[in-house]
Amino acid sequence: MTPGDIAGFYAKRGDLNPEDYIELDFTFECAGDPREAAAHLCSEQSTAQWRRVGVDEDFRPRFAAKVLDLESEPRPSGFSIPVECAVQGPVHAVRATIAHPHGNFGPRIPNLLSAVCGEGVFFSPGIPLIRLQDIRFPDSYLAAFEGPRFGVAGLRERLQAFGRPIFFGVIKPNIGLPAEPFAELGYQSWLGGLDIAKDDEMLADVDWCPLSERAAALGEARLRAERETGVPKIYLANITDEVDRLAELHDLAVAKGANALLINAMPVGLSGVRMLRKHATVPLIAHFPFIAAFSRLSGYGIHSRVLTRLQRLAGFDTVIMPGFGSRMMTPEHEVLDCVRACLEPMGHIKPCLPVPGGSDWAGTLEGVYRKVGSVDFGFVPGRGVFGHPMGPRGGAASIRQAWDAISQGIPLAQHALAHAELHAALEAFGRRA
Amino acid sequence: MTPGDIAGFYAKRGDLNPEDYIELDFTFECAGDPREAAAHLCSEQSTAQWRRVGVDEDFRPRFAAKVLDLESEPRPSGFSIPVECAVQGPVHAVRATIAHPHGNFGPRIPNLLSAVCGEGVFFSPGIPLIRLQDIRFPDSYLAAFEGPRFGVAGLRERLQAFGRPIFFGVIKPNIGLPAEPFAELGYQSWLGGLDIAKDDEMLADVDWCPLSERAAALGEARLRAERETGVPKIYLANITDEVDRLAELHDLAVAKGANALLINAMPVGLSGVRMLRKHATVPLIAHFPFIAAFSRLSGYGIHSRVLTRLQRLAGFDTVIMPGFGSRMMTPEHEVLDCVRACLEPMGHIKPCLPVPGGSDWAGTLEGVYRKVGSVDFGFVPGRGVFGHPMGPRGGAASIRQAWDAISQGIPLAQHALAHAELHAALEAFGRRA
Repeated sequence: MTPGDIAGFYAKRGDLNPEDYIELDFTFECAGDPREAAAHLCSEQSTAQWRRVGVDEDFRPRFAAKVLDLESEPRPSGFSIPVECAVQGPVHAVRATIAHPHGNFGPRIPNLLSAVCGEGVFFSPGIPLIRLQDIRFPDSYLAAFEGPRFGVAGLRERLQAFGRPIFFGVIKPNIGLPAEPFAELGYQSWLGGLDIAKDDEMLADVDWCPLSERAAALGEARLRAERETGVPKIYLANITDEVDRLAELHDLAVAKGANALLINAMPVGLSGVRMLRKHATVPLIAHFPFIAAFSRLSGYGIHSRVLTRLQRLAGFDTVIMPGFGSRMMTPEHEVLDCVRACLEPMGHIKPCLPVPGGSDWAGTLEGVYRKVGSVDFGFVPGRGVFGHPMGPRGGAASIRQAWDAISQGIPLAQHALAHAELHAALEAFGRRA
Repeated sequence: MTPGDIAGFYAKRGDLNPEDYIELDFTFECAGDPREAAAHLCSEQSTAQWRRVGVDEDFRPRFAAKVLDLESEPRPSGFSIPVECAVQGPVHAVRATIAHPHGNFGPRIPNLLSAVCGEGVFFSPGIPLIRLQDIRFPDSYLAAFEGPRFGVAGLRERLQAFGRPIFFGVIKPNIGLPAEPFAELGYQSWLGGLDIAKDDEMLADVDWCPLSERAAALGEARLRAERETGVPKIYLANITDEVDRLAELHDLAVAKGANALLINAMPVGLSGVRMLRKHATVPLIAHFPFIAAFSRLSGYGIHSRVLTRLQRLAGFDTVIMPGFGSRMMTPEHEVLDCVRACLEPMGHIKPCLPVPGGSDWAGTLEGVYRKVGSVDFGFVPGRGVFGHPMGPRGGAASIRQAWDAISQGIPLAQHALAHAELHAALEAFGRRA
C-alpha cells in the first residue's frame, strides 16, 4: 500500500456518524509496519480498494472499515505463538480500534459474524495472530434486535426470587438415566431449595431418555415440588437439536412441563437461537460448548465476552459461562468481562443473567458472590448438589444454608454447626477448596 | 482417579462394536500423567463416573468415551503455547484416539458438536491445550444424513464440464456496486470462460444491492452468456442470512435466476445448512468465515478438515477453503487434508468439490493442480479475473488459456506468445508469483 492507500483506511471518530458504525477492538501481532497492517485489516474485512478496470472509483468513504486508534510496541522475541507463515519483518504487538460500517451487511447475525470474525480478520496480510477483543454496537444497530424477552428481572419475577443469586443445579448422572429416576433427582433438589434443576448440556432428545418423557416426568415433579414448597420452580430442559426441530421441541417440552429451555448457543448457531426467540414463550438459557475452541488463548481468536454480547443480542435470558477458579482455565478478569457483558447497558436490550459455572458447591458460593460483586448471578453446581452425601435434597439445602450464612455475615463453619447439610458439604467437598 | 477408574475409560478396538462409535483423533499437551489425562478427557466428553447417592451403578460400559490408542512424549520445555492455568506437573505431548458412543447424542449436528468440540474436550482437567485433529463416522451414523444432493458429479453434469477443474471467479468490487454494473462484470467473466461467477462471501441482501435485484440482473446476464457461448453457466448467489430467511432467499434467488447458492457455513450454523439442504433445488457452496478462529494454530482448537467433513455431511456440494501459498497462512499438508476430506469415501455421502482459494490467477493454476493431484477441484480467482488489465472477460480467458497450456503440456510463457489475455496476466500478476 502507498501512504495514500493507507490514509484512506484511517479516520477520526468525530468525523464519522457513530450510528453508522460498529466498533471493534483488536489486538494483533504483525510482521512489518503496524500502521499498514491495520489498514490491510480494514481493507480485508470490508471493501478492498477494488475498482473496475477502466473506472475511477473509490468505495472506501462509505464502505471501508477505518482505524480509529492504534498503539503498537515492538516484540523483539517475535510472535508469541508459533505460526506457520511466510511473513517477514520486525514483529509488533498492536492494539487497534476499528469502525466498521454496519450498512455493509445489516442487522443479521451470520453476516455480522462473517464481517467481524471472518476471512477478512483472520487472513489479513502480515497478521498471523489476532484476537477480536470486544465489540460495541450503536443504538441504530441494536434497534433491529429483540434481545432477551425476560432478562434478569423477568426471571426473578417468574421465580419470585429477589435480592439473592438464582440457584441452579445440573442433574447428575448427566447421561444414562431414564426419565423417571432422573426426575426424582430434580424433585429432591427442588425440595432442598434449588430454583432451577437443569438438564446437562450433553443431554439430548435421545431414545434412552426422550425429551417428551423427560419433560413430562420433570414437569410433574416440578408441580409437586411447587405445591410442597410453596414457591415457583423451573425445570430447564435442554432442547439443543437441529434448528428445524427447535420450535417443535420448544412446544413439546413446554406442553409437558418444562418452563425454561437450554440451548447450546454456538453448536446450534446464534441465528437459530434468534429464530427460536421469536417463537419462545419461556426463558432461554445459553450453554457454552464450542466457544473455548476460539476463546481460550489470550493471543488468538475471539474474546469470550464478544460471544456473551452476541448471545444476549440473540435473545438469551441467561448465559452460562466458564466461571472462576483454575478448573475452568479462564482468567478471573475474563470471567468478569463476561459477567459485565451480561449486565451493563446495551441500548434497549435487557440485561441477561450471568452464570459463571464450574465445580461449584456451598463452599465456593461466597467467592463467586464477592467476585461478581452483586446478587445478579446464577450459581450452578453439579456434584455440589447431586453428589452431596445426603443426596440432592441435602446438596441443595447446603447451598441455601451457605447463602443464609453469607447474607447474614456468619462464617460458614459456624453456620454449619447447626446445619447438617452444610456441615456434610464442608466435610465432603471442603478438602478440595 | 484410581487405576481402576482410569482403566474403565480404556478399551481395545476389537472389543467394541465399531458401528456404535465415532472415532476422534486428538493431540493435546497435559500436565501430569498422560494416561490419566486421556481418561479424564473421555470422562468429561461423555459421562463422568457419576452415580446416584446410595446407588451402585456404572454408566461407563455403554455411555463412556474410551481411549483406543495413546502415545506420549515429554515436553521438557513445557507447554508450546502460553496458557493461564494452574495445573502443575511435567508436561507431555500426547496423541490419542478415542471412541465416542454416538448413541449418547444421536445424528444431530449441534449435539455432535457439543460432544466433540464442547466443554468436555476443552475443559478437561490437566489439558489446557488440545486440538481435535480428525473425526471418523461409522456407516450407521452417516445413514441418517443426506450429504450433498449433487456432489462433484452432479455439478459437472450441470455445467457439462468434464476432465478439467471448475472455474469460479469472485466478482469484484465485492461491496458497493449496485446490481446492474455488478451483473455486467459477471456477464463479461462468463463470456471469457468462467463456469461460475460468484458473489463475495461478504455480500448480503443489502439495501444498496438487494438480492432480488442482483439475482434478477445476474440471472438475465447468465442466460445471455449461455446463449452466446453455447455452454451452461452458474450464477452463485450469496444467501447467507438469518436461518429463518434461508428458504425464502433460496426461493427468491432461484426464481430470479441464481442456479447455485453460497452460504457461510459456520456463521449460519451447520444445522441451518442441513435444514436448507432439505429444501434446496440447486447446488450449495460453502464459504469459510469463522473457521480460522479455531483452526489456525497447530496446537489448539479444531483441525479444519473436521469442519470440511462436517460441511460435506451437512450437504454442501462444494467447499471453498483457504488454499495454497503463504497468503492464506495454511500449511500445504492441511490444505491437502481438507481436499481429501471432500473427495475420499464417506459411506453413502457423495464427494463434494474442494475449492482451495486465495490470491489466484492464471499463473497459480498449475501449482494448485499439481498439488491437488487431480482435476477434481475448483479454482477461484478474484483479482486474477476481475482485476485483469483487459477486464473480467480477458481475466477469465487468461485462466482458460492457462488450463489449455497445462493440459497440453505447453509452458505458460510459450502459450502466452499467441494468447494476449494470458500474456497480459503474466505481465500484470507475474511479478508477485
